[in-house]
Amino acid sequence: MYDYRAPLRDMAFVVKELLGLSAVSRLSDYEGYGEATDELFDAIQEECARFSQEVLSPLNRMGDQTPARMEAGAVVTAPGFKAGYEQFIAAGWNGLTAPVAFGGQGLPNVMGAPAEEMWHAANMAFTLCPLLTRGAIEAIHTVGTPEQRQRYLPQMVSGRWTGTMNLTEPQAGSDLAALRTRAVPENGHYRITGQKIFITYGDQDYTENIIHLVLARLPDAPAGVKGLSLFIVPKFLLQPDGSLGPANDLRTVSLEHKLGIHASPTCVLSYGDEGGAWGELLGEPHRGLEIMFIMMNAARFSVGVQGMAIGQRAYQGALEYARERIQGTPLGLSTAAPIVFHPDVKRMLSSMKARLEACRALSYYAGQMLDLALAEKDPTQRSWAQARSDLLTPIVKGFCSESGLWVANEALQVFGGMGYVEETGIAQCLRDARITTIYEGTTGIQANDLVGRKLLRDQGAMVRSLLTEIQAFLPELQHPALPGSLAQTLAHVLGLAEQSSVHLGKTALSGKLPQCFGVAVPYLHLLGWLVSGWLMARSALVAARKLQEGSQETDFYQAKIATAVFYAEHGMGVSTSLQRIVVGGGPALDGMNPEHF
Amino acid sequence: MYDYRAPLRDMAFVVKELLGLSAVSRLSDYEGYGEATDELFDAIQEECARFSQEVLSPLNRMGDQTPARMEAGAVVTAPGFKAGYEQFIAAGWNGLTAPVAFGGQGLPNVMGAPAEEMWHAANMAFTLCPLLTRGAIEAIHTVGTPEQRQRYLPQMVSGRWTGTMNLTEPQAGSDLAALRTRAVPENGHYRITGQKIFITYGDQDYTENIIHLVLARLPDAPAGVKGLSLFIVPKFLLQPDGSLGPANDLRTVSLEHKLGIHASPTCVLSYGDEGGAWGELLGEPHRGLEIMFIMMNAARFSVGVQGMAIGQRAYQGALEYARERIQGTPLGLSTAAPIVFHPDVKRMLSSMKARLEACRALSYYAGQMLDLALAEKDPTQRSWAQARSDLLTPIVKGFCSESGLWVANEALQVFGGMGYVEETGIAQCLRDARITTIYEGTTGIQANDLVGRKLLRDQGAMVRSLLTEIQAFLPELQHPALPGSLAQTLAHVLGLAEQSSVHLGKTALSGKLPQCFGVAVPYLHLLGWLVSGWLMARSALVAARKLQEGSQETDFYQAKIATAVFYAEHGMGVSTSLQRIVVGGGPALDGMNPEHF
Repeated sequence: MYDYRAPLRDMAFVVKELLGLSAVSRLSDYEGYGEATDELFDAIQEECARFSQEVLSPLNRMGDQTPARMEAGAVVTAPGFKAGYEQFIAAGWNGLTAPVAFGGQGLPNVMGAPAEEMWHAANMAFTLCPLLTRGAIEAIHTVGTPEQRQRYLPQMVSGRWTGTMNLTEPQAGSDLAALRTRAVPENGHYRITGQKIFITYGDQDYTENIIHLVLARLPDAPAGVKGLSLFIVPKFLLQPDGSLGPANDLRTVSLEHKLGIHASPTCVLSYGDEGGAWGELLGEPHRGLEIMFIMMNAARFSVGVQGMAIGQRAYQGALEYARERIQGTPLGLSTAAPIVFHPDVKRMLSSMKARLEACRALSYYAGQMLDLALAEKDPTQRSWAQARSDLLTPIVKGFCSESGLWVANEALQVFGGMGYVEETGIAQCLRDARITTIYEGTTGIQANDLVGRKLLRDQGAMVRSLLTEIQAFLPELQHPALPGSLAQTLAHVLGLAEQSSVHLGKTALSGKLPQCFGVAVPYLHLLGWLVSGWLMARSALVAARKLQEGSQETDFYQAKIATAVFYAEHGMGVSTSLQRIVVGGGPALDGMNPEHF
Repeated sequence: MYDYRAPLRDMAFVVKELLGLSAVSRLSDYEGYGEATDELFDAIQEECARFSQEVLSPLNRMGDQTPARMEAGAVVTAPGFKAGYEQFIAAGWNGLTAPVAFGGQGLPNVMGAPAEEMWHAANMAFTLCPLLTRGAIEAIHTVGTPEQRQRYLPQMVSGRWTGTMNLTEPQAGSDLAALRTRAVPENGHYRITGQKIFITYGDQDYTENIIHLVLARLPDAPAGVKGLSLFIVPKFLLQPDGSLGPANDLRTVSLEHKLGIHASPTCVLSYGDEGGAWGELLGEPHRGLEIMFIMMNAARFSVGVQGMAIGQRAYQGALEYARERIQGTPLGLSTAAPIVFHPDVKRMLSSMKARLEACRALSYYAGQMLDLALAEKDPTQRSWAQARSDLLTPIVKGFCSESGLWVANEALQVFGGMGYVEETGIAQCLRDARITTIYEGTTGIQANDLVGRKLLRDQGAMVRSLLTEIQAFLPELQHPALPGSLAQTLAHVLGLAEQSSVHLGKTALSGKLPQCFGVAVPYLHLLGWLVSGWLMARSALVAARKLQEGSQETDFYQAKIATAVFYAEHGMGVSTSLQRIVVGGGPALDGMNPEHF
């Protein structure tokens, strides 16, 4: 078993040195945000690391071995989790980025992201609960009536109640148009009837109430996704005075037996077995999907962070093992030494480290764009940030979750046979990580979103803006401490991304949409390598300047440069083959006939 | 739960049409081989498919859910497995490729490989037992005395006794030089003392005896791997009349709790707690590792087949699910249809199908080379085949196991959220597949073997011979039914492999061995794409000729061409980035300092 240590220096580098302290501090001037100062950031980081390492991480393995279970129709969570949750909310972590008006600390996402990384790395199954509560808070805060905000948010921000997201039904997974759950108006509220599956923390024994956000159809609803409305359906009804009343007409039918995240109860929920669960409409009728997407986009960003985080935990385990385990004399050394010095193990760990740093930069950067989209005062800047954030969401979700899964798999490989034995805990990382490329929309769904809604819908404007910004950055990379290959690689990948984007635009215009969407995943990965590679190059430049200025942290900054170079040489090269698939792979896909598979 | 169906037509295509019937038939003339005729192949295939589908596959899930366990110091296998094993040996499957003189059928590996694929796909945890027995048979057959062969082989070929391979100790995994188990001579035999771990089927309740092959050190042994000898250590001692005597001084200490292959007991074995287990020397003293490598090379080839096989099972599950599951209207269609028609799902399944066909061709081809190395009469040809087989072994093991794991992971992705639920069985495929890139030498170990012993040791002769053969084939690809891109891609990848090989040779000559071994895995993958891509191109050519000759199987042969084209366009392109790492990635790796990780 390997403990988790929060990589605080790396996190601070991204937030304070790469993205810029100014960006954090600027936000403190904005409405709705608390004081996001340098000192507060450091204090929160330190405290969050302590909490993650000392409270959440020690529960991680127990949660895997003793999954959440059903008892007498209710969920019993894994041993220690309820107490851990109580500590989590008592320390105020639940409201870190929530609105100040409802008891939150109102901190920006760029400060919330490192905290979220620590929680997920320490205990992913635990952290799914607050993740979903935060999404529900955001939805209610954005479109709820003043009464609804007052009724639900203080309790949810404090964490005394949790929130869930109810989309999926057995026949409706990625295809939400097929949803059948019904909502019938009755005396100013609604009666909800239907079955929902895959409801994360659909029930738990942490809190006295759970606020379910449920997609359902009104009687007059049009068919398809435009006929979905969103309802607030509490587990226990609220009395006029705000106290808890009788149980609502909903029940947990069963829990899924999953590959990983065993401590997170994945519920089948049945609404309205006794005539209909009480619900109230959130937002306008038939606009449920749009509102759910507020929650979903927040969750997609968080799952990107989560993917990177679980990869970080796995990487640390592999690194620690590779530093302890002695097997023979590595090439280039003269005596027996730990396997970290074997060239192939060093290559694996270097690849993992580079990929994680790249994903950290990418996801925190996306968090910063979320902040600016919410709080930037200049409307042009705000809408620019919204567009950039919209573009980044599927990339962060897709690329960081796939990267985290890849890292967890490589980490297990470093352990060799010991990795296959559950005892070391690395197998749990892989099993836990495996869900991140699936839930909140699979990588394929993210890629469809990227190509359909982000690239094609605005004729490439969002993508062009990104490519132009990277192009404009290239000359800055001409720094004497950086190898020319860094700029060359970035310029090369930029060109590949441009060709690929143009090709997809032309293919769409010529009516061959299936070809566009058939290569959407390789395109998403290509943009992931580009944006993360750009941020890694920027990191190298920051480091080069610090060294030039005479920083004493020479090892740290030299490692930042070396890691960016490694990422370019060993990682980003795959962009060439991705571009080849995007630009040339459509006809070969057309040639495949599923009838003959 | 998705059943396994043996892909008999695809298998027959590789054996009879791609590798050539003549190659199979020719072997029937060789000493030591039975009648490998066309008719026999078809009959065996059909019977093996029936057995795999009806006997082995139905046990697969039970084995996962009810792992092998310890009871009163002995292993109790999963429910149904003992009966399955009895049927397996009663039907004569255990001796399919074993020597005729000891009761086997003496069939060539090119015919054994498809059978092995079926068994592993049907039930990987089950099939590990005969896999190891076959390796032990081969070792005893190759270097055992006439008495040893007579004493052990008839029982092992029939399957009445099983065999195991005892290498690993807690401090000695990939580094066998660190082995400590001792063997002391006594009255013409030896007393063995020490602890071995990761012993697959180190104990079982299938058979009355188990023949352990154990690496240990004699008292006068030199240090390192040149001081290892191999011993035959039966679980029960043999009386002079061949009947079973008292239990030997060895015991099963515990079983590992693993990520997958739950039905396969992975044992910690302790030898000599009561003074020393009885053992007899196999082969010459201090030559144990060489002999173990006979067994290991056979096992490495088999694990390559196994990786592909478990991928095939996963692919079939994903395909079946994608043909059933309806989610919306796929682009390009006008009504709701199964997700197999969604462009991204079609791309995933196409990639999986292509990769599996490529690995099947690669592994069966390697089986054919094993046959020729064993039975070809012309000594020049035989030693050529031995060299080719030596070159292919790490490629087959590394590339096919990594590919199988990749396929299993993609297959789970096709299932979406349902894939993460253990109920569908696809998660088991991923968990089972995960071991294949580790045991019998990790991918890193295979790559070191490839670069060190295969590429550099003979100054590139083996690799050059392969590249020359592929070069000579290129003009044949100029067929009107094949797109020119097929030959272009193959030629391109051939060039990349040549540049990479030359670069590694030069780097080694300049003394930078750590750089060579630091990029050995990408080099292994590059050669894997090359050889499998060459075989896919050859498959396309075979198909084009069949169509030209007026074959009625137009769908099948057109699919073969389309799949080869897809493999070139969507798969082989990654070779460019692999070559880039091999040729240019060494310095970036040198720049990474594990002290600063």
